[in-house]
Amino acid sequence: MTKPVIIAVTGGSSSGKTTVVNEILALIKDEKIVVIRQDDYYNEQSHMTMKERLAVNYDHPLSFDNDLFFNHINDLINGKSIEKPTYDYVNYTRANATETIHPAKIIFLEGILILEDERIRDLADIKIFVEADEDLRFIRRLKRDIVERGRTLDSVIEQYLDAVKPMHYAFVKPTKRYADIIIPNDISHDVAVDLIYAKIMTIINK
Amino acid sequence: MTKPVIIAVTGGSSSGKTTVVNEILALIKDEKIVVIRQDDYYNEQSHMTMKERLAVNYDHPLSFDNDLFFNHINDLINGKSIEKPTYDYVNYTRANATETIHPAKIIFLEGILILEDERIRDLADIKIFVEADEDLRFIRRLKRDIVERGRTLDSVIEQYLDAVKPMHYAFVKPTKRYADIIIPNDISHDVAVDLIYAKIMTIINK
Repeated sequence: MTKPVIIAVTGGSSSGKTTVVNEILALIKDEKIVVIRQDDYYNEQSHMTMKERLAVNYDHPLSFDNDLFFNHINDLINGKSIEKPTYDYVNYTRANATETIHPAKIIFLEGILILEDERIRDLADIKIFVEADEDLRFIRRLKRDIVERGRTLDSVIEQYLDAVKPMHYAFVKPTKRYADIIIPNDISHDVAVDLIYAKIMTIINK
Repeated sequence: MTKPVIIAVTGGSSSGKTTVVNEILALIKDEKIVVIRQDDYYNEQSHMTMKERLAVNYDHPLSFDNDLFFNHINDLINGKSIEKPTYDYVNYTRANATETIHPAKIIFLEGILILEDERIRDLADIKIFVEADEDLRFIRRLKRDIVERGRTLDSVIEQYLDAVKPMHYAFVKPTKRYADIIIPNDISHDVAVDLIYAKIMTIINK
């Protein structure tokens, strides 16, 4: 089996990473592609009290179990299936369920800190940073957290200013320089998606 | 004849635009591709004294004959050959010679202000902004101007601070938001070149 092509898609909170990945998947609809999201690799925290769990900075690199993430990517590269963890966002810890992921020709890695860990960065063949203006990112996040996660306006603002924004500048934005391409996602990302699609089809048809 | 695909490659002075375009051309070596450089469309200045010509700000949008540039791109789109002007960098005006350019399936437009003119921007199907750190751009420009153009260190610094840098912030950098993809060119642009190459081959083989 040829080594799979690893495509890392990163960028700040609500920059549009997931949208970009989903649009590419929709164009291809092919089982030769899998997506592994870094969010599923948040640390196991069942030994912690709820108060401790709420105090965790979930935008900091240390809140992710990157050892497991890295090992799983390597397993997929080596042709082994993995039991991908899933996350329980209500209880802020790993859920009991896992999801079996089989090796594939193309593996997308998606998350805010994919390029921050050198080991994971070095596995990526194509590194993409999705970028959007800070205000647009905040507005998208605000809408999502209020509508989908039932948060209050104040709690969204507080988390944004206390964790999301400072961690973005400290850990996420600096990884932009490792990107092979940056997708500015303020207006449209259609042409960028089409470019990546063309490359993927070239790989699949090879 | 199907409408050609117009690929705009822009970015600041010495960001690596030409290198990126040349590497793509080297991969393809196909007469279905032409490159039109905005620098060839600097204004005709034969009616001006040399003193006036030296005082021109060559990093300002008004120093380009964008009407002719726009008309020529449209001619190529409409299947007509053009007589592309050439520039005399010694005398700071249009040279007598022209170059016949025939229509092609893929037309690259390259220059610092390709996306600044809305008419030209709207003709571009794929808009690429090549980006590099300011210090790296200055160092590359310094080397080029001293080695290839026989300039002095002082004259390079003066022109950079008086024209290149302020015009970059006023006119070049703001066009980054129109780009479909940005290529960070501090470390390497190989993967980005490969993505664009894959897209071009898809177009050519269609």
